[in-house]
Order: sequence, then C-alpha cells, then structure tokens
Amino acid sequence: MFFEGSEKKAEIWIEPSMASLRALPQSFWIKMVSLAKADILSQISNDQCDAYLLSESSLFVWDHKVVILTCGLSTLIDSVNDFINSLGTDNILFLTYQRKNEYVAHLQSSTFIDDITTLKQIVSGTACRVGHLDNHHHYIFTSGDVSLISAQDNTCEVLMYHISGVVADYLRTEQQSISKIYALLQLDELFAGFTYDAHLFTPLGFSINGIKDDLYYTIHITPQEKSSYVSFETNVDLNHSPSNIAAKLLAILQPRSWDIIGFNSVVAGPNMPENICLGHCSYPVKQGYNIHFSHYQQLCPEVLSPEFL
Amino acid sequence: MFFEGSEKKAEIWIEPSMASLRALPQSFWIKMVSLAKADILSQISNDQCDAYLLSESSLFVWDHKVVILTCGLSTLIDSVNDFINSLGTDNILFLTYQRKNEYVAHLQSSTFIDDITTLKQIVSGTACRVGHLDNHHHYIFTSGDVSLISAQDNTCEVLMYHISGVVADYLRTEQQSISKIYALLQLDELFAGFTYDAHLFTPLGFSINGIKDDLYYTIHITPQEKSSYVSFETNVDLNHSPSNIAAKLLAILQPRSWDIIGFNSVVAGPNMPENICLGHCSYPVKQGYNIHFSHYQQLCPEVLSPEFL
Repeated sequence: MFFEGSEKKAEIWIEPSMASLRALPQSFWIKMVSLAKADILSQISNDQCDAYLLSESSLFVWDHKVVILTCGLSTLIDSVNDFINSLGTDNILFLTYQRKNEYVAHLQSSTFIDDITTLKQIVSGTACRVGHLDNHHHYIFTSGDVSLISAQDNTCEVLMYHISGVVADYLRTEQQSISKIYALLQLDELFAGFTYDAHLFTPLGFSINGIKDDLYYTIHITPQEKSSYVSFETNVDLNHSPSNIAAKLLAILQPRSWDIIGFNSVVAGPNMPENICLGHCSYPVKQGYNIHFSHYQQLCPEVLSPEFL
Repeated sequence: MFFEGSEKKAEIWIEPSMASLRALPQSFWIKMVSLAKADILSQISNDQCDAYLLSESSLFVWDHKVVILTCGLSTLIDSVNDFINSLGTDNILFLTYQRKNEYVAHLQSSTFIDDITTLKQIVSGTACRVGHLDNHHHYIFTSGDVSLISAQDNTCEVLMYHISGVVADYLRTEQQSISKIYALLQLDELFAGFTYDAHLFTPLGFSINGIKDDLYYTIHITPQEKSSYVSFETNVDLNHSPSNIAAKLLAILQPRSWDIIGFNSVVAGPNMPENICLGHCSYPVKQGYNIHFSHYQQLCPEVLSPEFL
C-alpha cells in the first residue's frame, strides 16, 4: 500500500519575446510528461492557463511559464533537461527545481545531487538544502535572473504528513466521490470562482487542479495510513485572501507534521492543530526574492505503533 | 566533513553450556570485526568482560554474550551472519539486530530489509520499525527465546542529534584531549569505579568504552557541525543509578533532538534541555521483554541555515 507522495517540482519562466508556450502542440507536453514517467489524464483551460492533471501530479502552462510537479518514482529531471534544451538555454529567464524529502529516498532512481549535476551542465545556478537531513528537509536549485520576472510573483506550498480525523478517514474508504472530497475540503469556499479538474486514483489517492485567470491551486492526496502525504500549492496570495486557506486545510486534514515553503510568501502558522514550529529558515535567492521554510509538528505526543515488516 | 555516526548494533546470547566466548582466539574477533569493515584499535578487560574499541565503534564480549556496534558505512550484517554460522544456529539463545535511521541512508551498501533477508535464511525472528519514516525511526529484529536469558537484562540507548553548547564546541576544536572530554562529560562521577578506554579520531570524533564487573557503557561522538550525532549505551540500570545519567548527558551535550530506546528499561525524559516528546512506543517482543522508544525534540524553535551544496 506504500506510495511515495513527495514531489519533485520545476517552475520555469521563459523570455517574454518568445512565442507563447500554450501554442506548442499537445505532443510537446505529452513528451515532456512521459520523460518524467507520467501521463496526461485530463486538461482544463482558461484564457491565461492550461492545467493538466497527470498520472503523477500536475502541469500548468502559461504563455511564458510552466509549473510541473511529479510524485512517486517519476524522473522529473529528464523532463526539465529536455524542456530547456528544446527551448534553448538562452531563452530561460528563471528556473527553480525542488525535491521534497521522500519517505523512502533509496527507491528513487536519482538523488537531488545527481539531478543538479546534469542540470548544471546546461544552466548555472545555486543549490541548497533547508532543514536537517534527519528531519524534514527540502532541496532547491535556482537559476537565472529573478529581476526579469514579476516582483509580485509568489508561491506557497504546504506539505502535510500523517493526516488524521474524519476527512482523512473518508479518504481511506473504498467508496469515495470527487464531489464529496471537494465539499469536505471546502474548496468551493476557499477557491470561489475557480474552474477545477479532479481525479480519484485506484486504490487510493486524489488530485485536483484549479485555475482562475492566472491563478492556480493544486492538491494531491496520498492517504495511505502509514505514509500519508498531502501537498497543497498555490500562487494565490494567502496573506491577502479572505479565508486563511492554509490554516483551514490544516484544520481539516490534521496532519501530525507539516512544512510550509514560501517563495516571496510568508504564511502565518495556524492555531489548529495545536503545534510547535520546530525550525524555520528565510534566505534571499537574489535581491528581492526570498525563500521561507518552516517545519511544524503537533504539540500533542503521538503514540506510535511498531510497524511489523 | 560528513561522517555517518548512526550505528548498526547486534546483541547475541549463546547457550550457557557452550565454552566461554572469551576463550576464542583474538583472530576470531579480528575476523568478525573485519567483516563489518572495521578494525580493533585497543582492548580493556576485567574478570567478566573484554571491551574492544573499534575504528567504527565497539565490541563487548562476555562469556556467553556479545554486543557489537558499528557506524559509518560498516557492514555489520556480514559479521553477524558469520558469527552465527561459526557458533552454530542451534547455539544462539537470543539475538537482536538493530539499525538506527541514518543521515544519508542511500550511501549504505544495504538496507535493513536487505540485512534481515539474509539473516532470516539462518535464524527465524520478527522485524519491525518504530517511528515514522519521515522522522527518527529505528529497525529492530529479534530472534530466539528471551525466557532463557536473564529477566534482569536491560539496556538503554540514548541517541543524540545536533549537539550544541560549550562541550559541543570543544569537541569541534583541533586541540582536544581525552582527559578533558572525560572531565567535560563528567564520566568520573556518572560511572564511578569503571575502567575505561578512549580514542580520539582524526579529524574529529571520540569513542569511549567503560566496564565494571558485567556492566558496560559506551559513548561515540561524531561532532561534525551539520550532522552531529552522539550515541550513549549502557546496561547499567539507569532507574537505580544514583545520578540521572541520561539526563546529565543530555544537559551537557544539548542535542536538538534525541531518541531513547530501552530494552526492559523505561528512562524518564529529562527537564533540560526543555523538550517535547513527539512520539513514543512500547511493545513486548516476548512475554516479559519490552522495547520502549521515545523521540524528543527541544521546545525552542531552531533557526535553520540553508546548506549550500
């Protein structure tokens, strides 16, 4: 029943003088996704963005930007290298490549160090790890000139581990529906006016993409009891949103621990579940572009069960 | 500067009708240790126990029991399999084989599952993991009939991560002495009357074995700034010891987080450093023999530094 929910992620901005990425043929994206060992399941579009649900997570394409997340044993670095080579390295304005700490890292076909060794052959950049190796940690590579992209650009990622409570229980049942999960997560209220596209996986798992103008959110749920993981990511400015979206999702999913990664975005820690911030880190990648990392844990001690092997 | 301090450990009890293990030639132990990719550095003995300091940790030999710990990229499972085959599987009364979660697991030449796959070909037993995969966790395999060993047998392991404070600072200096470390750790007071044997490693690292009658303690320090680790282990009954030994060592070394593993031993959490028990677990291996695991973290949030790669 184990599935590695933790994602690799790339965000790539290209020269605004280039033709729109959305004009590229579907075959381009099918190939890009297949290089990561994933498939396109479905697609929604609006006037600014194409959002693809993948067999392992999501791809969002704007005129001059892509965001791709892939989980499991996917090989996202192969997609990224091919994308850069196809577009031409000179046309890449700005790039981030991330890996979140995996539950079972040794099953992956490459390490982050392996990945950036190949990436650095085509683009220069800076790589670092935030968080200790024996706890939650994240690897981030950044390349390019951030001054060329919008200063207003912000992204927030909330990564939740070991979810519990009634919604977590529902997500582990055999009879689920997309509409019920959508309602339980209160997405109608949290993301009013967003078009969405969702998928239920067999035996378990739920993915959703939502878009509105140039805004997106994406949620991927791996509910498996012993290794549950939920990622939530958005470029909605959470500090200027009417609901405290991150806090609501944390209260609904009740993870034992969670990490918040913000790019030009500091998200206040929620009150519920009662928690402690075990570690935090803020650092500028370039002038005016900051990365924030915080690692939280529920305050109430957990009674652990031995896992017989 | 990275060194993997986390140990693999085996404790093996043999039939009391067998000849004393201490009568085996030195070549037997040299071979056993070399199979784990380690060397014997020095030895102390008393009337009940031979204690060897190894290039990667320690070996203790009693008449009918051995305890061996090896760190780094050592291959302890090869020593254990060879030991069992040399003595004869029928002569093994009771065995535990453990692996503590490593900082960089993918550098190891085998996983715990690989190890017990070979071990189960010669002895039957039960394997389990305590602690979540995305946090501190420990693998424990047990085999044999615990009713045949002393009900009074207890062992306590305290595993400390990210040490800080003046003693940690001293352990990272170039000019160190064994006597100064011995004094800083207050071992004269904590283990009064114990004979000891210690070693300073280049560039950094400290190991000590202490014995008194059939009692032992062993401390291994990997002080490297980004991945520091200290293991303390003893069969002294900490609950009937005049000093609160575990609490004293935690107050001296001020780790950010630590795990306590007790075999028939429950160790009270210390007050200093101020901490929270994030998770705990108790389970019986066999009637009357219990394993306790607790994972602690300092209460004060840590300001993390990005680690540039």
